[in-house]
Amino acid sequence: MIELQDIAYVRSGVADLRAAVHFATDVVGLELVASDEQGVAHLRADARHHCLALVAGRSGVLASGFTVADEDALEGAERELERRGLAVRRLDAAAARSRRVRSGIAFDDPFGNRLELVAQQEFLARPVAFGRAAGITGFGHLCLDAPDVHEAYRFWSATFNAKVSDWIGDAACLMRIDPVHHKLAVFKGDGPGLCHVNFQVASIDDVFRNWHFLVEHGVEIEMGPGRHPQSTAVFIYFLGPESFTYEYSFGVRRIEDDAAWRPRTFDPAEPGSIDMWLGPTSRPVTQPQARDGLPDGAASAAPSGAPAQVPAASLSD
Amino acid sequence: MIELQDIAYVRSGVADLRAAVHFATDVVGLELVASDEQGVAHLRADARHHCLALVAGRSGVLASGFTVADEDALEGAERELERRGLAVRRLDAAAARSRRVRSGIAFDDPFGNRLELVAQQEFLARPVAFGRAAGITGFGHLCLDAPDVHEAYRFWSATFNAKVSDWIGDAACLMRIDPVHHKLAVFKGDGPGLCHVNFQVASIDDVFRNWHFLVEHGVEIEMGPGRHPQSTAVFIYFLGPESFTYEYSFGVRRIEDDAAWRPRTFDPAEPGSIDMWLGPTSRPVTQPQARDGLPDGAASAAPSGAPAQVPAASLSD
Amino acid sequence: MIELQDIAYVRSGVADLRAAVHFATDVVGLELVASDEQGVAHLRADARHHCLALVAGRSGVLASGFTVADEDALEGAERELERRGLAVRRLDAAAARSRRVRSGIAFDDPFGNRLELVAQQEFLARPVAFGRAAGITGFGHLCLDAPDVHEAYRFWSATFNAKVSDWIGDAACLMRIDPVHHKLAVFKGDGPGLCHVNFQVASIDDVFRNWHFLVEHGVEIEMGPGRHPQSTAVFIYFLGPESFTYEYSFGVRRIEDDAAWRPRTFDPAEPGSIDMWLGPTSRPVTQPQARDGLPDGAASAAPSGAPAQVPAASLSD
Amino acid sequence: MIELQDIAYVRSGVADLRAAVHFATDVVGLELVASDEQGVAHLRADARHHCLALVAGRSGVLASGFTVADEDALEGAERELERRGLAVRRLDAAAARSRRVRSGIAFDDPFGNRLELVAQQEFLARPVAFGRAAGITGFGHLCLDAPDVHEAYRFWSATFNAKVSDWIGDAACLMRIDPVHHKLAVFKGDGPGLCHVNFQVASIDDVFRNWHFLVEHGVEIEMGPGRHPQSTAVFIYFLGPESFTYEYSFGVRRIEDDAAWRPRTFDPAEPGSIDMWLGPTSRPVTQPQARDGLPDGAASAAPSGAPAQVPAASLSD
Amino acid sequence: MIELQDIAYVRSGVADLRAAVHFATDVVGLELVASDEQGVAHLRADARHHCLALVAGRSGVLASGFTVADEDALEGAERELERRGLAVRRLDAAAARSRRVRSGIAFDDPFGNRLELVAQQEFLARPVAFGRAAGITGFGHLCLDAPDVHEAYRFWSATFNAKVSDWIGDAACLMRIDPVHHKLAVFKGDGPGLCHVNFQVASIDDVFRNWHFLVEHGVEIEMGPGRHPQSTAVFIYFLGPESFTYEYSFGVRRIEDDAAWRPRTFDPAEPGSIDMWLGPTSRPVTQPQARDGLPDGAASAAPSGAPAQVPAASLSD
Amino acid sequence: MIELQDIAYVRSGVADLRAAVHFATDVVGLELVASDEQGVAHLRADARHHCLALVAGRSGVLASGFTVADEDALEGAERELERRGLAVRRLDAAAARSRRVRSGIAFDDPFGNRLELVAQQEFLARPVAFGRAAGITGFGHLCLDAPDVHEAYRFWSATFNAKVSDWIGDAACLMRIDPVHHKLAVFKGDGPGLCHVNFQVASIDDVFRNWHFLVEHGVEIEMGPGRHPQSTAVFIYFLGPESFTYEYSFGVRRIEDDAAWRPRTFDPAEPGSIDMWLGPTSRPVTQPQARDGLPDGAASAAPSGAPAQVPAASLSD
Repeated sequence: MIELQDIAYVRSGVADLRAAVHFATDVVGLELVASDEQGVAHLRADARHHCLALVAGRSGVLASGFTVADEDALEGAERELERRGLAVRRLDAAAARSRRVRSGIAFDDPFGNRLELVAQQEFLARPVAFGRAAGITGFGHLCLDAPDVHEAYRFWSATFNAKVSDWIGDAACLMRIDPVHHKLAVFKGDGPGLCHVNFQVASIDDVFRNWHFLVEHGVEIEMGPGRHPQSTAVFIYFLGPESFTYEYSFGVRRIEDDAAWRPRTFDPAEPGSIDMWLGPTSRPVTQPQARDGLPDGAASAAPSGAPAQVPAASLSD
Repeated sequence: MIELQDIAYVRSGVADLRAAVHFATDVVGLELVASDEQGVAHLRADARHHCLALVAGRSGVLASGFTVADEDALEGAERELERRGLAVRRLDAAAARSRRVRSGIAFDDPFGNRLELVAQQEFLARPVAFGRAAGITGFGHLCLDAPDVHEAYRFWSATFNAKVSDWIGDAACLMRIDPVHHKLAVFKGDGPGLCHVNFQVASIDDVFRNWHFLVEHGVEIEMGPGRHPQSTAVFIYFLGPESFTYEYSFGVRRIEDDAAWRPRTFDPAEPGSIDMWLGPTSRPVTQPQARDGLPDGAASAAPSGAPAQVPAASLSD
Repeated sequence: MIELQDIAYVRSGVADLRAAVHFATDVVGLELVASDEQGVAHLRADARHHCLALVAGRSGVLASGFTVADEDALEGAERELERRGLAVRRLDAAAARSRRVRSGIAFDDPFGNRLELVAQQEFLARPVAFGRAAGITGFGHLCLDAPDVHEAYRFWSATFNAKVSDWIGDAACLMRIDPVHHKLAVFKGDGPGLCHVNFQVASIDDVFRNWHFLVEHGVEIEMGPGRHPQSTAVFIYFLGPESFTYEYSFGVRRIEDDAAWRPRTFDPAEPGSIDMWLGPTSRPVTQPQARDGLPDGAASAAPSGAPAQVPAASLSD
Repeated sequence: MIELQDIAYVRSGVADLRAAVHFATDVVGLELVASDEQGVAHLRADARHHCLALVAGRSGVLASGFTVADEDALEGAERELERRGLAVRRLDAAAARSRRVRSGIAFDDPFGNRLELVAQQEFLARPVAFGRAAGITGFGHLCLDAPDVHEAYRFWSATFNAKVSDWIGDAACLMRIDPVHHKLAVFKGDGPGLCHVNFQVASIDDVFRNWHFLVEHGVEIEMGPGRHPQSTAVFIYFLGPESFTYEYSFGVRRIEDDAAWRPRTFDPAEPGSIDMWLGPTSRPVTQPQARDGLPDGAASAAPSGAPAQVPAASLSD
Repeated sequence: MIELQDIAYVRSGVADLRAAVHFATDVVGLELVASDEQGVAHLRADARHHCLALVAGRSGVLASGFTVADEDALEGAERELERRGLAVRRLDAAAARSRRVRSGIAFDDPFGNRLELVAQQEFLARPVAFGRAAGITGFGHLCLDAPDVHEAYRFWSATFNAKVSDWIGDAACLMRIDPVHHKLAVFKGDGPGLCHVNFQVASIDDVFRNWHFLVEHGVEIEMGPGRHPQSTAVFIYFLGPESFTYEYSFGVRRIEDDAAWRPRTFDPAEPGSIDMWLGPTSRPVTQPQARDGLPDGAASAAPSGAPAQVPAASLSD
Repeated sequence: MIELQDIAYVRSGVADLRAAVHFATDVVGLELVASDEQGVAHLRADARHHCLALVAGRSGVLASGFTVADEDALEGAERELERRGLAVRRLDAAAARSRRVRSGIAFDDPFGNRLELVAQQEFLARPVAFGRAAGITGFGHLCLDAPDVHEAYRFWSATFNAKVSDWIGDAACLMRIDPVHHKLAVFKGDGPGLCHVNFQVASIDDVFRNWHFLVEHGVEIEMGPGRHPQSTAVFIYFLGPESFTYEYSFGVRRIEDDAAWRPRTFDPAEPGSIDMWLGPTSRPVTQPQARDGLPDGAASAAPSGAPAQVPAASLSD
């Protein structure tokens, strides 16, 4: 079994990098980290160098990254995944540099989601220079799509140290890899994709101030403000450019006594299963997995066909 | 100086008693206390026998009641108020019975609000049988109108043990008579009236569940959900029948170190002064003071002219 | 104002001393303290030498005793009571000895209850040798009768350091002289008398074990098991010989923040006002004040007319 | 060994569904969950969708359900039970839906009690809408009958993670599967059946208020109020329709240090072994196991012979 | 004696308003509060609307403001100061509005420092929008000059509720008006003036990050980083435009037990008296009191001679 | 795997022993422990007899010592190291005596750093007689050089119980062998050598007092005062004679929950990675490993060729 240490980042391809970065910094409030890499915008939310990389090119999520303990662990994971029949590729130096990791591997989960395992993700010591005072305290979790969440659970719990924390019927499986109720979720969806990315905020006040800010700035609210009965987090989901859904939340449950926790199953058709405040609910928009050509950064000879105006990205992504 | 012990009740005249009681029980969630008194509905929120009495007759707030320590204190208050030039009347036996107090006095504040001081308000030991599971934990505060809140403060702080906790410019003076940030507020208004009555709820979840309930049932939301920066309470204001504004709130500040507290002044024109979450705000609707004829229950020979269908009320109110 | 330190004892006249002592020891569980004084049985519940003295003779309560700080305080109390127009008599040496106090005074309250104030009540260091393992931890409170409990409150609060803790309408006034919710109660009754004497027990289990014990032994249960909403104590009242009512209770409230306490008024006609568990309630039987002839132990030449078979009592009571 | 996670539900057949539901909601205080399934009433006490299902048809307990961790665990349990020689049947889709579980298996214990193991029991996020304010906080435990409680213990401890917490001689074996003193008990009885179902209440006051409520409404009290020395819970047992015994209790012991606990044995013939308050005791009435025809929901072609007026039940139960 | 509640603000005249505001926001990190008042820049550090007002015109400190409890307290202060022979002037409406107070008075201390007492300083509920992430948590203290600090102490302690916390020989008197070690200091100086204004920061890291930031941006460091032995605060002093000295500090001592505190005297000639880390020390630069013409905002007909390009300031300052 | 218990000492060859000892005692503040061993100065910082031995002779670090549990552990380590192909030599009696250990072994790590493992290092019970009141509380950590810190990590984590606590890119690997964030560090360097030796001080005040002391005494400050984001320690590095770098620091992080710690990677090129206060940084000067001739104290027949003026050292080092 492969020990995931933490979630590391999401990489997402965007057709309009300028607009996506504007939204990520001026609306969501992330920091745009200065970089000499063209065509890639690194967005920071906490001590990690970045947890979101927007890559100029075709729209669509490119990869979701998780950390393992060190390079030996990475090698072990590589062997384990191949033993299970998955095709694994090493990230080349440019790809690793773009992700600010020492080394990494890429592979697709059985449902088509591109996953990356990496060693030694870079941290920055200086305070985050947030683009807006949204109260963000860090990268909370990421949520992927799969056609059958029970199958997805079997994959994650058999391959990794992921444990189910709660079920929302056939609609979602919420999983933990540390005491946080879920750092990884899988939602039922037709194909592979990134359902949403979550950022934790410092107080319930931040959730509500952000709600009014988003409404005033014409941002589409997908769901909330509400409160999830599973994690007890107060949430708001909103839609960024190119079908990328963001979530702010506060107050996520920590499962300190791992052995005593009993996963619960909530029927999404029952009132309150999604929002215990009983507000209207809707399924967040998923950004589909980018599927054209070869994975970025894989040690492959195939050309990536990146557009002229984002040459740096064409090298590493 | 007269020592107020607590807020006791609000009495409000309603033209349509059935509709007002329906709203108070089925929407707000209060208990209708069984009683043999016709034309008066006693509504209960906590251990008090009632904190809201709806009296069939002309619309308009009739009185706001406060408790004093005992009958000796009541006599002292009577003398003190008369010394200050206020006309004070004793409640007769029927009026006292209707209020479930042993004895009481009635007088008008300098702005025309009818106030009552009472001794030995009755408490009920059995659990409250709430009309709806709104999460109410008790009667929180009452808010009156006055044309000049600074004048109102001078009256309350000179006559009673009321202290200002915070100012909202010229718009409101929030006062405490115990550690709760405010049990009494005065809002700027053209004439005397009851701005709103507040009920505390048990959790922030209750505020939001009630919000959705109210919206689903077509109740007019006046303001909120939001959070007051003065008391830190999360609130929602909504309008009941006959211009009676109710508020639910959770998380009101307690001022435990009375001597260390510094009242603050917030300019209502500045963003966040009413709702620190920066949502839209509006002034709650005030139910004007009922002003026709003599005060209910005063020791007077004048007939009250109560309508035929509510004969019991005509005796005591 | 006279500072009462604590309740000291109750003296009660009994026609059948043997039967009364049997009940007090074998049923209630008190210790019969060995003594060379004939005709008086001293019954012990805690460190006090005794808190109940049964005196052979005519049935009826003889006196209720309270301690003051010292002999100076006793003299001051004597003067204060006389200033208020009450007839006060000194206890003679034999009377003081019988009560195990250094000195004392006796007088009647305005309602005819004989009261005694004493200095230096004797304590015993050895453990109590209980007559039965009823779990008694000490003398809890005593309750007197008066025709008007509001008048009684005026007497007690004006003359002594007694404060009302809660009202049961016109039926009862519960008063404290230390943090215990009430050590003194006055119940509405036609004439002077002792309504009941309370003993605290160590656990709720003791209340219920005693209940079954009493039922099995054919003792008349007057009320309970139940729980008083005022003091939160779980209680059971039962009837001893010669109309003497005993109460066991557990869990009496302590009012630690004296200034913050607000007395409450409960209407005895409302369900739960006497027993918050909503069980059937009834008024405990009062033992009337013994009223024939002169008070026992007063410095008087008048004969007591005690019967021949209890000569010792005829000397001191 | 099969890991039970928790108790899930009891299913009971009732000849008069209307009367049984009336008792469960208006007397016991459970919520009747709205459902489109005819002939089955789902009754809710806590976050579980239901913990009691009343099924129109012949009287008698149908099954007792327990949860396992997930579907893999369920498959493992199936294999394990078959390895031990027990006949195991899968619940079909309608049966699983009726139980609000994702999947399940059914089998009989060696004593004839029908047991079900299920994965992913549904939880409801909205607050419970109790039928009466009985103070219920949740499904506490269930108790089955077996002719020899020592044999029963051997079965449960060898097959499952059940541990004995305490013995009542040959009369009862109290077992835990989590820190609660017992979630499962086996009482000595002639044949298979459900001895009683326990609901926890929020305070000792609720036990006693419910006692008076039951007495006033003519419900047969089987035992109590009393206190079990094993679990320290204060209890009351009462009889519902069709020989179904309910228990309320408060204050059940939690065994936090599992390894340190030493099971104790109490002789039922000794006073206090059942009720440490020493009240009268009696054996609760058991509802016998329904034994005619095939188990409900088992993957079988046999008709269930359900009566015409409850057609939905005839399909799944 | 006049009860000061807190420090309120400093007003300072600046010849180059643009440069001074640039420094205050982009270097110091304060928020420039939007306002329709021309010629005055309101700078915010905490919940107060502003604690520094820069007023276009001649260079020099204009006034130091302190709050009193309410308007009655202000009137009392006015009478008390006049009784002591000081010339007191009421702030007119425009001056009060410019300071965001309800009302105020102005007078000179015996050393020529202009002081203002105000009632109801305005607070803003929204979070501070800092100009730079300097870590500021609030307005810490202000320091005035006087030729004799012992005389100054006599004035402050006799007139106000100011207490000396510590002495630095004849060089400085550090005074408190609440638990903070000093909110007011007087340094020995030739004439009246503002020695420096202090802002508290959230951590020691902020002090040092700010130090490097200031050095990199060519700001003149006057003293520090160092640590004051009196308040235990880690400090850095730096010079803004027009001789205005700012201080950041972290970790100021709170004197919670006011009665137990014993003021100490440190000889400035001894090493470590100013900086317990023994670094080089120097006297901060004082901005002299503006002395030409009449005080701004005093109820006077005299023209203020404000320059044409800042007309709004000419009305109120 | 070999269990290191703690760091023990550093031995360093110095051409000018007098100057080096003067610096170590009068500047750094260590105690010179009296000894009859000529040519070796034992310097003490805590209970250890010494943690720094300056050995007259050629300049260059001689060895870094670590303790193992006992002599059996030492033998085990010897075998383990030889099994891994390392040449291991036993310390002779004189060498062991000079190190104040019972026994020891010496070997070179794969990068050329001389390491020694020892059993039973001597402790002194008397307080340390510091050469200067620098506030030293103990020997903090030692830092070696290696050309590839990832290779070094593989050596240390495979051979010993060393765990990485944090990475500074390719520049440094910080390792723990107990809860202290790092007692051992490896910095990237061209050849083997001692990068620096760290001493902990008692307070942040000591760091800063020492800073001013060093500046005043003309000592070259290499880096700081600053704060490491990895260990959170406030530090200052300074250069002693013969390229020997000392560090004072305060506030090093302790990793109490070993399993929960996630090593982080900081890019040294990013601001704040070395000094989170963002001050200027520079690489400390390394004292190269002494490489001429045979290791001191190894059980070897080869002459040591020590110079005449340090005869004692020629015997044991």
